[in-house]
Amino acid sequence: MRMVDIIVNKREGNANTQAEIDFLINGYVNGEIPDYQISAWLMATFFQGMSDEESFYLTKAMLYSGDIIDLSMVDGVKVDKHSTGGVGDKTTLVLGPLVASVGAKVAKLSGRGLGHTGGTLDKMESIEGMSIDISEEKFIEQVNDINIAVAGQTKKLVPADKLLYALRDVTGTVPSKPLIASSIMSKKLASGADVICLDVKIGDGAFMKTLEDAKDLSKIMVAIGDSFGKKVTAFITDMDQPLGHTIGNRLEVKEAMETLMGNGPEDLETLCVNIASYMIYYANKAETLEAAKQLAYDQLHNGKAFAKFEEFIQAQGGVVPNLNDFIHVDEVMPYKAKKAGYIKQIKALNIGLASMKLGGGRETKEQDIDPNVGIVLHKKVGQCVEVGEVLCDIYRNQKWSDDILGLLDDAYCIVEEVVETPETIKTIIG
Amino acid sequence: MRMVDIIVNKREGNANTQAEIDFLINGYVNGEIPDYQISAWLMATFFQGMSDEESFYLTKAMLYSGDIIDLSMVDGVKVDKHSTGGVGDKTTLVLGPLVASVGAKVAKLSGRGLGHTGGTLDKMESIEGMSIDISEEKFIEQVNDINIAVAGQTKKLVPADKLLYALRDVTGTVPSKPLIASSIMSKKLASGADVICLDVKIGDGAFMKTLEDAKDLSKIMVAIGDSFGKKVTAFITDMDQPLGHTIGNRLEVKEAMETLMGNGPEDLETLCVNIASYMIYYANKAETLEAAKQLAYDQLHNGKAFAKFEEFIQAQGGVVPNLNDFIHVDEVMPYKAKKAGYIKQIKALNIGLASMKLGGGRETKEQDIDPNVGIVLHKKVGQCVEVGEVLCDIYRNQKWSDDILGLLDDAYCIVEEVVETPETIKTIIG
Repeated sequence: MRMVDIIVNKREGNANTQAEIDFLINGYVNGEIPDYQISAWLMATFFQGMSDEESFYLTKAMLYSGDIIDLSMVDGVKVDKHSTGGVGDKTTLVLGPLVASVGAKVAKLSGRGLGHTGGTLDKMESIEGMSIDISEEKFIEQVNDINIAVAGQTKKLVPADKLLYALRDVTGTVPSKPLIASSIMSKKLASGADVICLDVKIGDGAFMKTLEDAKDLSKIMVAIGDSFGKKVTAFITDMDQPLGHTIGNRLEVKEAMETLMGNGPEDLETLCVNIASYMIYYANKAETLEAAKQLAYDQLHNGKAFAKFEEFIQAQGGVVPNLNDFIHVDEVMPYKAKKAGYIKQIKALNIGLASMKLGGGRETKEQDIDPNVGIVLHKKVGQCVEVGEVLCDIYRNQKWSDDILGLLDDAYCIVEEVVETPETIKTIIG
Repeated sequence: MRMVDIIVNKREGNANTQAEIDFLINGYVNGEIPDYQISAWLMATFFQGMSDEESFYLTKAMLYSGDIIDLSMVDGVKVDKHSTGGVGDKTTLVLGPLVASVGAKVAKLSGRGLGHTGGTLDKMESIEGMSIDISEEKFIEQVNDINIAVAGQTKKLVPADKLLYALRDVTGTVPSKPLIASSIMSKKLASGADVICLDVKIGDGAFMKTLEDAKDLSKIMVAIGDSFGKKVTAFITDMDQPLGHTIGNRLEVKEAMETLMGNGPEDLETLCVNIASYMIYYANKAETLEAAKQLAYDQLHNGKAFAKFEEFIQAQGGVVPNLNDFIHVDEVMPYKAKKAGYIKQIKALNIGLASMKLGGGRETKEQDIDPNVGIVLHKKVGQCVEVGEVLCDIYRNQKWSDDILGLLDDAYCIVEEVVETPETIKTIIG
């Protein structure tokens, strides 16, 4: 088998066989196939796409390129959730304790944030004492014991994805749906869950710009899940503005805690209740989806979800934050409207970048982050503002960059016509 | 400027700017841009194509990546000819002396053959004493003196093409028309000619399989020539069978000499007279194309073209072959028809490969070749044959390979219906 023939097959619009895809992935991971052949194949795949079978074979080959987490020692249905990356996305911090509180098993491996989107691990580590560095035994024990554990990746999960992603990033082949789908699904499958909910963001600053693109991507991922015998549901959700009101690690933990206490912003609660309902239903913790949804709502409002959060934080050595003494900044700078009207868009990418430049996110993997800084939105899309009204507060310490205000100026689109409040969940696939 | 942005521009169907193309070619030649980015760009170019401007910029960037032959010391119009690679293609050996005999200047740099197609240098070196290793001064002096010189490339012409071609070969990006066009044209332009005739082969064993493809490629090359102020004409010619009757270095020299004496096979003479007419006309050696064509025909039949051939061979130290004692083989093996009917096709690729396996061509750059071996066709497409009639003779020495007969079996397509003699020249562009 020759790599050039595999490239030509794909270029000509023929499907690659399982043997070809295995040869390609194994050869690449082993260093036998050079980058320049893989990148030509990636670009041909960008143009020609992949059949469902090919996406399955690719995901499988990537999955088996590394370790796979064995959750067979966890009793019950393991649920997991993945977001394609959003700004202000603290969903995992809410969903985990919420579904664990009704008996679904949450054994979650999370990553750190890079660029304009935050990572769950960074948010968790902003809580005093919290450790994400726990052994596999303790991890499994904790899930069996209290239904939830969150840890950083230690094993070599899907090395093929790390290699391919790095190559895609520099060869203009990131936005290929089957490549995105197999990248996400191989990592989720390697984490060992039975039920997977995917939060596919659309809008500014998201991978997918349109509903159609997001639907196509979602269908590929659901089909891959089916082929592996996993229940996958994709939620296509709004990212034409940040989720909730807060951006920045501690600010987001605070908002997640408020949501777990039944006092969260509407969009965040809606999203969490809906995703939770599928996780609860497919984990056999409710008879119907409707009942699961009601249960999820109730758990947020009867204190049980928050109690599970406290249990979870303490189990991993953390101190449950006192919200009156959690966020420490030198200054809270109001950012005011320069124009009256209805807010049509709050560009999530800009807000994410502004928070990063305040020190709340990393531009490179090595950077330290300041968990206190960030942005708090006072107005969301659809709301009416007057000139001089505070649109958001900038929580800052020493770090400052002159383009932060420019990013905010550009983020807000204010128009004269009435703007409807956007639907948080656009559609559900799976 | 970042290479990934250049790739994305091309991927999205936007034209690359001249600055982008210069950056890409210079960066690649300097080793600053890695193979894997270039190969992604090549594949994106395969799918998105190039505008005439982009093809011009690419050709220019490649041309200036290395040395350019300075023919300003040659008086008069310099003519050159390039074939996209055919089997039995001895056209240069005829055309050079033919157009030189009427005063056009032929300052030709030629290459060696690789694979199933022969190279002009190999054919010339099969003549005793002939040297293609001549200094630049002597080369120019000889062109001024007798109108013709042929030499091997010594200067570093178009290093970008060598790099790009090697990468295209292993990344499935060879058959992209703008990439083929800029590869051919950059080399021709580096050789310094004013008038360039291109022989674009179509059919089995040729780069271009269809007339449409060949027309598209030809138009790109003619447009590139225009942009450089050069007169380029493309002849789209038949390669559904080898050209003339002979394949193999000395066998082809013999046939070229016979053609120069007015005794050549019809297809070869037709092709040479037609291409020569454009070279003669654009070199201002005839008033009209029609007059140029008559002149070319006359020179083949009045001994003047052959006299120029003798002068040329002797000027480069060669001994004009005695055709009765030129080809030395152990055996001439007749290959006979197994079926009666009309010959519909003689697959040029198969005949070329058979000749190569006899030792007449190289599989790798390092191989020595036997100038005596090859194949002589006795029947051509359109002719009627009986079972047992000799289709061709195999001129062989020690070297033999069991699949040679299989290649010949597969080369001949014999049918019951009458087959028309194919047109040698399908169309002319430019």
